[in-house]
Amino acid sequence: MMRTRPLKVALLGCGVVGSEVTRIMTTHADDLAARIGAPVELAGIAVRRPEKVRDGVPAELITTDATALVKRGDIDVVIEVIGGIEPARGLITTAFEHGASVVSANKALVAADGAALHAAAEKHNADLYYEAAVAGAIPLVRPLRESLAGDKVNRVLGIVNGTTNFILDKMDSTGAGYSEALDEATALGYAEADPTADVEGFDAAAKAAILAGIAFHTRVTIDDVHREGLTEVTAADIASAKRMGCTVKLLAICERAADGASVTARVHPAMIPLTHPLASVREAYNAVFVEADAAGRLMFYGPGAGGSPTASAVLGDLVAVCRNKLAGATGPGESAYTALPVSPMGEVVTRYHISLDVADKPGVLAQVATVFAEHGVSIDTVRQQGKDGEADLVVVTHRATDAALSSTVGALRELDTVRGVVSIMRVEGE
Amino acid sequence: MMRTRPLKVALLGCGVVGSEVTRIMTTHADDLAARIGAPVELAGIAVRRPEKVRDGVPAELITTDATALVKRGDIDVVIEVIGGIEPARGLITTAFEHGASVVSANKALVAADGAALHAAAEKHNADLYYEAAVAGAIPLVRPLRESLAGDKVNRVLGIVNGTTNFILDKMDSTGAGYSEALDEATALGYAEADPTADVEGFDAAAKAAILAGIAFHTRVTIDDVHREGLTEVTAADIASAKRMGCTVKLLAICERAADGASVTARVHPAMIPLTHPLASVREAYNAVFVEADAAGRLMFYGPGAGGSPTASAVLGDLVAVCRNKLAGATGPGESAYTALPVSPMGEVVTRYHISLDVADKPGVLAQVATVFAEHGVSIDTVRQQGKDGEADLVVVTHRATDAALSSTVGALRELDTVRGVVSIMRVEGE
Repeated sequence: MMRTRPLKVALLGCGVVGSEVTRIMTTHADDLAARIGAPVELAGIAVRRPEKVRDGVPAELITTDATALVKRGDIDVVIEVIGGIEPARGLITTAFEHGASVVSANKALVAADGAALHAAAEKHNADLYYEAAVAGAIPLVRPLRESLAGDKVNRVLGIVNGTTNFILDKMDSTGAGYSEALDEATALGYAEADPTADVEGFDAAAKAAILAGIAFHTRVTIDDVHREGLTEVTAADIASAKRMGCTVKLLAICERAADGASVTARVHPAMIPLTHPLASVREAYNAVFVEADAAGRLMFYGPGAGGSPTASAVLGDLVAVCRNKLAGATGPGESAYTALPVSPMGEVVTRYHISLDVADKPGVLAQVATVFAEHGVSIDTVRQQGKDGEADLVVVTHRATDAALSSTVGALRELDTVRGVVSIMRVEGE
Repeated sequence: MMRTRPLKVALLGCGVVGSEVTRIMTTHADDLAARIGAPVELAGIAVRRPEKVRDGVPAELITTDATALVKRGDIDVVIEVIGGIEPARGLITTAFEHGASVVSANKALVAADGAALHAAAEKHNADLYYEAAVAGAIPLVRPLRESLAGDKVNRVLGIVNGTTNFILDKMDSTGAGYSEALDEATALGYAEADPTADVEGFDAAAKAAILAGIAFHTRVTIDDVHREGLTEVTAADIASAKRMGCTVKLLAICERAADGASVTARVHPAMIPLTHPLASVREAYNAVFVEADAAGRLMFYGPGAGGSPTASAVLGDLVAVCRNKLAGATGPGESAYTALPVSPMGEVVTRYHISLDVADKPGVLAQVATVFAEHGVSIDTVRQQGKDGEADLVVVTHRATDAALSSTVGALRELDTVRGVVSIMRVEGE
């Protein structure tokens, strides 16, 4: 039995994602109505530049007054695809105050201020859904929040930024350096004019914060996430990874500590073995592993960005939020009851690949090995290659804390025989 | 704010999955309560053999009278992990009549009678959830039903039976024949004493029916699914696939016809290129591709069976159903509004690998090629290898209907120069 009075939707932002949301809501109105149990109607679209030509977007719905739109009082759901902190945050809060539920694709805002937004939603008995904020169309928020709600997630590890994966994939497949690969990504539209958010890892860190919070039922903000971008990754690093049977990926890693009493979240480049499924994730695709007590290892893979995939996630949330509205209920909100603290990076335990430029003379390896031993970092393999009185020394460690590794590297720099620490990279995925 | 009166759960069946559900409900009671918003309590466990020792299962909860348990009147949720059609169907129906919602792992029942069960659930304002019925812990039912509810799914293609994947993986990696690989699967516990449901494709066909129905918002039962098992797959087929850069997998494939007016669902062995992500799914793992208009290609991967993974899916559903109960709402039920007909296998369009035993003399290839042309089946590649007056002729076709291919093969058998049709296998994943 279908309700005939339509649910009214306000769309905030009409860029690549907003246009696609509009297109699908218009062309697939009957399907959406059948799946929701009532028709949905776009009641208004708030944009900054109303003069911009937007094919397929009804001109009569365009407004520049987003605040007035969310305050109208008859809006059931607000879709926010503006991005950034303000005005998105203010508009979402106003939407809740005026009885609307919210579907957002805004990773930066949710990662910075998710707790307050969830509290506002709960106070006004509204929904806040944001599947589109993490990994585009790949279902991750809903599987973590709902499908795995009866399980205990221990680890989330994945590639959640398409731009950096494109760059690293190019570097790996062509031998290009970072700048050259970035230029190609920009030319092909995979990187923005200002690529900072992607290449410095801010985008991935926001997603890591969101995933960690949901996975571990605690609060993690972007400030809790250790973040290293890929601007320091060199062609030599990639070549060195290849010699080890590895490739380099920018990974987001969220882990529950072995004792279960804390969690960590980090984003950094890391070597992973070519045999690991993440190694074969090419171009701008995303893929995320979730490891849980009962479920084991799950992987989710797909296009991590782009107008259509993001719109798919937004519309999936729209259907859910509308159904909840019709049922007079709300979906699962924030679940942060474990209140697990987020440990600093120093407590993270992993393996490391360290490349040193050393003097090529007897006793150097013994000196280096002694420094590792003194700091409690156990060596797995060493590879040494001499050339004209100098040598490349590559050390791969067993698992050690980041703090122990940092102390080791500090002490290595003090050695006369160590000319330089060429690179340090974590090794994951084993 | 947590409700203190517990939600009461009746468990039907206490085998591998049921024991694990019991264990997790007992050891993770606090987590489940926090995530649901109320404690959940196991009120009774119905089994056939009460004398069997079940570690960690409270003896006082055991009963042999499943009907009385679901009729108690105070049961909020019934978890059905008995399997098979009866008594599961009768018990689930009785559960709905007595006010309970149902979580089931029963693929056979849902694939045979899902529409009637959904109708019964709806009539009694109850939920029927069955994530565990398809691909163990891998979230598929919920992503298809909810995450992709705003998208248009065109294709679901995957490995949904772990036993057969284990067998084919062994055949591929060791060169073993089917019987030998099945023996190993049985010895290792991957295949049951009577492997019929797995190796004849019944299990995969049930899953294909469920996935097709949800993906295309229509009704598909197991009887609508074209089914071929893997008992006919030979070591020679696998070797032939390897020569083509392929491997053989038992695939479940659900497709929307190009004109959108019908759907197909089928399970059969098929060659897929080694470069396809499904080719690298090893042992008893499952993986499913979902292709949708806006989302693009998504892949879901993980353990497709086993007590713990299946229990993870059951408990995820339990949390959702309990939340719905507390909200006085129900989740999404059956969505079959498109009412798309299921086309017969003859209308399926794909590629074929045909291996023929022919006389090694001039003109045979021309004869064979003529038969293909007469039936409108276009040839992609031909490989011929002679030996002592006979020859192996391997033909790979372009895309053609199954009906056209069948007619072609019928006509080939009539040719004097064709001694035998050694094998016919579909080629997928391109």
